[in-house]
Amino acid sequence: MISAKRLQYTIAELTKGLDVAIKGDPNCVITGISSIQDAQQGCVTFLTNSLYRKYLETTLASAVILAEADAEACPINAIVCKNPYFVYAQIAGYFNGRPAASAGTRHISAVIAKSADVDASVHVGANCVIGERVKIAAHAVIGAGCVIGDDTEIGEAACLDANVTLYDGVKIGKRVHLSSGVVIGSDGFGFANHQGGWHKVPQLGTVEIGDDVDIGANTTIDRGAIENTVIGKGVKLDNLIQVAHNVKIGDHTVIAGCVGIAGSAVIGKHCMIGGSALINGHITITDNVIITGNTGVSKSITEPGIYSSGIVGAVPNAEFRKNNARFHRLENLMQRVKTLEADIKQLRERNDS
Amino acid sequence: MISAKRLQYTIAELTKGLDVAIKGDPNCVITGISSIQDAQQGCVTFLTNSLYRKYLETTLASAVILAEADAEACPINAIVCKNPYFVYAQIAGYFNGRPAASAGTRHISAVIAKSADVDASVHVGANCVIGERVKIAAHAVIGAGCVIGDDTEIGEAACLDANVTLYDGVKIGKRVHLSSGVVIGSDGFGFANHQGGWHKVPQLGTVEIGDDVDIGANTTIDRGAIENTVIGKGVKLDNLIQVAHNVKIGDHTVIAGCVGIAGSAVIGKHCMIGGSALINGHITITDNVIITGNTGVSKSITEPGIYSSGIVGAVPNAEFRKNNARFHRLENLMQRVKTLEADIKQLRERNDS
Amino acid sequence: MISAKRLQYTIAELTKGLDVAIKGDPNCVITGISSIQDAQQGCVTFLTNSLYRKYLETTLASAVILAEADAEACPINAIVCKNPYFVYAQIAGYFNGRPAASAGTRHISAVIAKSADVDASVHVGANCVIGERVKIAAHAVIGAGCVIGDDTEIGEAACLDANVTLYDGVKIGKRVHLSSGVVIGSDGFGFANHQGGWHKVPQLGTVEIGDDVDIGANTTIDRGAIENTVIGKGVKLDNLIQVAHNVKIGDHTVIAGCVGIAGSAVIGKHCMIGGSALINGHITITDNVIITGNTGVSKSITEPGIYSSGIVGAVPNAEFRKNNARFHRLENLMQRVKTLEADIKQLRERNDS
Repeated sequence: MISAKRLQYTIAELTKGLDVAIKGDPNCVITGISSIQDAQQGCVTFLTNSLYRKYLETTLASAVILAEADAEACPINAIVCKNPYFVYAQIAGYFNGRPAASAGTRHISAVIAKSADVDASVHVGANCVIGERVKIAAHAVIGAGCVIGDDTEIGEAACLDANVTLYDGVKIGKRVHLSSGVVIGSDGFGFANHQGGWHKVPQLGTVEIGDDVDIGANTTIDRGAIENTVIGKGVKLDNLIQVAHNVKIGDHTVIAGCVGIAGSAVIGKHCMIGGSALINGHITITDNVIITGNTGVSKSITEPGIYSSGIVGAVPNAEFRKNNARFHRLENLMQRVKTLEADIKQLRERNDS
Repeated sequence: MISAKRLQYTIAELTKGLDVAIKGDPNCVITGISSIQDAQQGCVTFLTNSLYRKYLETTLASAVILAEADAEACPINAIVCKNPYFVYAQIAGYFNGRPAASAGTRHISAVIAKSADVDASVHVGANCVIGERVKIAAHAVIGAGCVIGDDTEIGEAACLDANVTLYDGVKIGKRVHLSSGVVIGSDGFGFANHQGGWHKVPQLGTVEIGDDVDIGANTTIDRGAIENTVIGKGVKLDNLIQVAHNVKIGDHTVIAGCVGIAGSAVIGKHCMIGGSALINGHITITDNVIITGNTGVSKSITEPGIYSSGIVGAVPNAEFRKNNARFHRLENLMQRVKTLEADIKQLRERNDS
Repeated sequence: MISAKRLQYTIAELTKGLDVAIKGDPNCVITGISSIQDAQQGCVTFLTNSLYRKYLETTLASAVILAEADAEACPINAIVCKNPYFVYAQIAGYFNGRPAASAGTRHISAVIAKSADVDASVHVGANCVIGERVKIAAHAVIGAGCVIGDDTEIGEAACLDANVTLYDGVKIGKRVHLSSGVVIGSDGFGFANHQGGWHKVPQLGTVEIGDDVDIGANTTIDRGAIENTVIGKGVKLDNLIQVAHNVKIGDHTVIAGCVGIAGSAVIGKHCMIGGSALINGHITITDNVIITGNTGVSKSITEPGIYSSGIVGAVPNAEFRKNNARFHRLENLMQRVKTLEADIKQLRERNDS
């Protein structure tokens, strides 16, 4: 259970301004927030995943955020709404006691180039290094140990957690959040083979990150070879994702951890890409496409929908080994079926004659 | 060959206190340690992988650590034991000449909050940043460039290599070892969709790392949404692993590199997970499960055993392309087999009538 | 479009010393470089990927670098050569206006051990930490926030971008380029099981990086257990790659992002490995092997060629689910085909008798 920052809130206070209906007592006092299976008395909890519906009857919580369809079965106070996960996100803010960076402080150990233009309201953490001609807009937070390359621009209220690295010339939008270990603007992977050796192709573009983008820990985004690598506004990237040079990701697309996106791929708006997927280079994925986890996308996708590849479902190894061996002889199996079909045809003709 | 820290040891000295039998001369002098194929005279080596048994006859080593089953065939001094890899690990310690951090030194460049409680025996490297109310217990080592968030607790003799990032409120057990680039406590990937845009869900939990955990370079572990992300004691994680929010990993489980573990997955004790596996969210894997490399686990596993998915075995591309094309028409192949079965049945009946 | 560093160059100037033929006007003035689809008048562009040939007729560029085969169809000035991508790489250098580190400067905030031997021409960025007995040769660049472990050696003109971590004893060749977040020399993943717990195996080797190696952001290379992990000269590694202990990678091999290479794997020279591939431990891949993306290599490869595994090609999820289900019953399908074959044989014999 996460306790409230102040002593307590009523359900009415927590839901003020939100599009919800309260079933039960709006004056019920809430002192913490919890998952449905672990909730104690005094907690508000939520039901957004049907896997957890079974806990509704027995939860000790004092209130549950849930959808209309579940309200009937709810034995306690219910905060009924169309989008319980969104409402939960808003209410959870009341219980967020995590420390915040103090605005307008620059740690004495930070190394800030004289030509940098850092707004007075920006927080600059210890041991940051801010390069020449960098511009950082109001209310941004630069965590300890960040290195910001020359000529980079960081938008209003952007937040870089500790140990983020931005190369030169990168453009970061407003309210962008970069987690620790993120690297943006590293050279794209471009090498030309000449007489057996690989020669570097200068990477002259940069990276543009739109407003309200969130990027997870240790994710890397390479700068473009000539054109920029572009991350659209509202995009959410999880941890350990690789975005290669010249990639374009459309607005409001979300991508789960460990995904690799090869060079010059273009991904549409409002897409969802599952963990460990691999997107080939130089292909285009249209808007509103869902790619399931572990899928390898090797060709362009031109119609919205859900797409998959790979083999899903782990099975006992002995069973797997048999099917795997059969896979490697699928062409052979097909030829045997063709032979059977010809044989049957022949037998039939003989019988009919 | 790695040379001994001091001039030399006898086999008897190296094996003192270990559960081994010496076959040959316990006073044989050892001056270095080496792999079996590269060993020179004076070296101790080991045999733990049957792939290398062929070198036993010709090795120039002066002694070999091996199992009873291999002792008969060993032409040189043998250190015979039940667990040669474990015994090798102990003996290798005598040859470890790598530099160690000096206890009780705090580099002048480190930035340590006044409210932090750092034991006098702790080593604090150059350019570390240690936040408010952090507690670091005796004999811990904090490498250069680490950033430790507010309210974090680090157990006795824990060792953070250079450039590790811990967010606020993280709990690190005793004797934990974190490699460079590790990020622990970054926000979980939680966003609620509202009218087409994604809105951040506050991540209010933290991360608990049990005693004797080892975490590889650039691995990331996100903090829980409400409950904590929990890594059990003795867990070993390799490099570049993504552990999402709310995940629980049971004691003594080992996970190889590049694995992705999605949110709220629960992994049992004493499991082994191969490289590049992907574990879906909200599933449970019981104790003593082995997952082979590259496997995608999409459903809960309730019985111990070895589990696999995917296609194993790289083959020449031309052959692969045929089988891959056949895979994409497997349903069609199945229908053709069903037709054949019906045809045969019909032909038989005709023949029988 | 990337503008020229100085005002302008003629085609003749840009191609001086390169093995090209100019078709059209060598005195044509070039003011920028661009991709073929976005080129404006005054730009030089290039054609190296047949996907983009369709733009040749309509591009607004003033000159195109291309191969003999495309020269005929080129309506504008052409820089004709055998290897357009390599020639483009050379010409692009004229348009590289990115800031360079100033040689021979050591930032006052850098922490350099007294016993370190750092050439006077080396650039040392802010907040670097350079350990005992480190040797850094002429013209190297050490970016801000790098941590260099004791006894490490860095070759002439090597370049470490910001926030790179090298452990103790690592050897870096000449002209090596390490991107931000790279970790080299972290402990290999070696643990011996003893009575249910995992015990660390000391990792006594180190890492050797050959001349002209390039390593992408957040890639990790573990030190050897006894022998060194070795990256051959001219090797190019993309972002987020995991190279485990004792691995050897042959000269001039290129490896794309998100690849995992397990312990003691040996990869030949001039290989190309696609994104997200997984190479098993203790196997050998010969020279001149191409591994396509997402492939799992579980056995040694002894002949040059192109190798693949997995399932390629994302398809609509409903279709995929059917084929995936059939895969899991492939063994059953095979048995049914065998039964059919026996039945046909029997029917035939009956008919023939």
